[in-house]
Amino acid sequence: MIQPWPKLRSQTRGKFTVFTVREDRKVSPRTGREHDFYVLDSVDWVNVIAVTPDQQLVMVEQFRHGSETVELEIPGGVMDAHETDPVATAVRELREETGYEGCNARVLGSIRPNPAIQSNTCHVVLIEDCRLQHPVEFDHGEDIATRLLPVDETVHLAATGKIQHSLVVVGLFYFDQWRRGLLPR
Amino acid sequence: MIQPWPKLRSQTRGKFTVFTVREDRKVSPRTGREHDFYVLDSVDWVNVIAVTPDQQLVMVEQFRHGSETVELEIPGGVMDAHETDPVATAVRELREETGYEGCNARVLGSIRPNPAIQSNTCHVVLIEDCRLQHPVEFDHGEDIATRLLPVDETVHLAATGKIQHSLVVVGLFYFDQWRRGLLPR
Repeated sequence: MIQPWPKLRSQTRGKFTVFTVREDRKVSPRTGREHDFYVLDSVDWVNVIAVTPDQQLVMVEQFRHGSETVELEIPGGVMDAHETDPVATAVRELREETGYEGCNARVLGSIRPNPAIQSNTCHVVLIEDCRLQHPVEFDHGEDIATRLLPVDETVHLAATGKIQHSLVVVGLFYFDQWRRGLLPR
Repeated sequence: MIQPWPKLRSQTRGKFTVFTVREDRKVSPRTGREHDFYVLDSVDWVNVIAVTPDQQLVMVEQFRHGSETVELEIPGGVMDAHETDPVATAVRELREETGYEGCNARVLGSIRPNPAIQSNTCHVVLIEDCRLQHPVEFDHGEDIATRLLPVDETVHLAATGKIQHSLVVVGLFYFDQWRRGLLPR
């Protein structure tokens, strides 16, 4: 039976806008030795599966500064301080990034981006019957193009490596399972 | 057409064992304004889909320090400095963490953990006909239990949120697509 590691102390080692680095000193339950672990704390993230009436997904293309590449992704973003429901974040981010609005918004699943080094969760929200209703509202740090793709094509792009963001691939996997009737939700 | 952002300067802001924090100053091609972006640099990671002759997956359970939970995952780890081929890392990590060894090891796909804030890649390696051949060799910072699960069950656990690590879910998605004949590999 795998045991949790008791924490001896914890300190913040750096604050970097979208994440904070924390250092935790812990004791191995197996060896009794002490180890330091670095953890990235962030607010939760939300990704949006936005389906149009003619079964296309509302996707976005943007330059990403970690990879320094233009990536095809689903819309999404971080939960604002006043937002407690990921569905509200999803509706807002979809509107701001693409101008689209839909109905029946609900959480399809939640995932840990990387439980080894990150403490937060990413929620995948499905919104149906999405239509272009608003002008886009980009942050100054954003430059985003909307792309509509047939839903079947998006799953194939994820499987074959054309869609590269792991959290986007997870969202499309949940969506594929849901469409095939394999999710209880 | 989405344009890359020219980089004005770059500096290291912190080194934390498994990742380094870099600050890049860039110019928006849309507004001409300058912005700072923080990027996490790491070596590449490798995850292993290890299939036994009776169609079970060799999985691992361990306490994860980001989430502070025990997670069910596939084996994996970081590429060592002298390793240039992710397949070699996969074979080594599978042996060290579980004692299993197999054949026909090859890359099933590669994914970016988070291109918004991370520069590295995670490779998913498939190894077939895996059998228990060696004693395990844990690092002092590791405490890992091997779990064998039927392959169909693992995909269901990923879809329904029992498997929570996004990169593990991506690996199982690639594997599911490959088993269903939907991958060109």
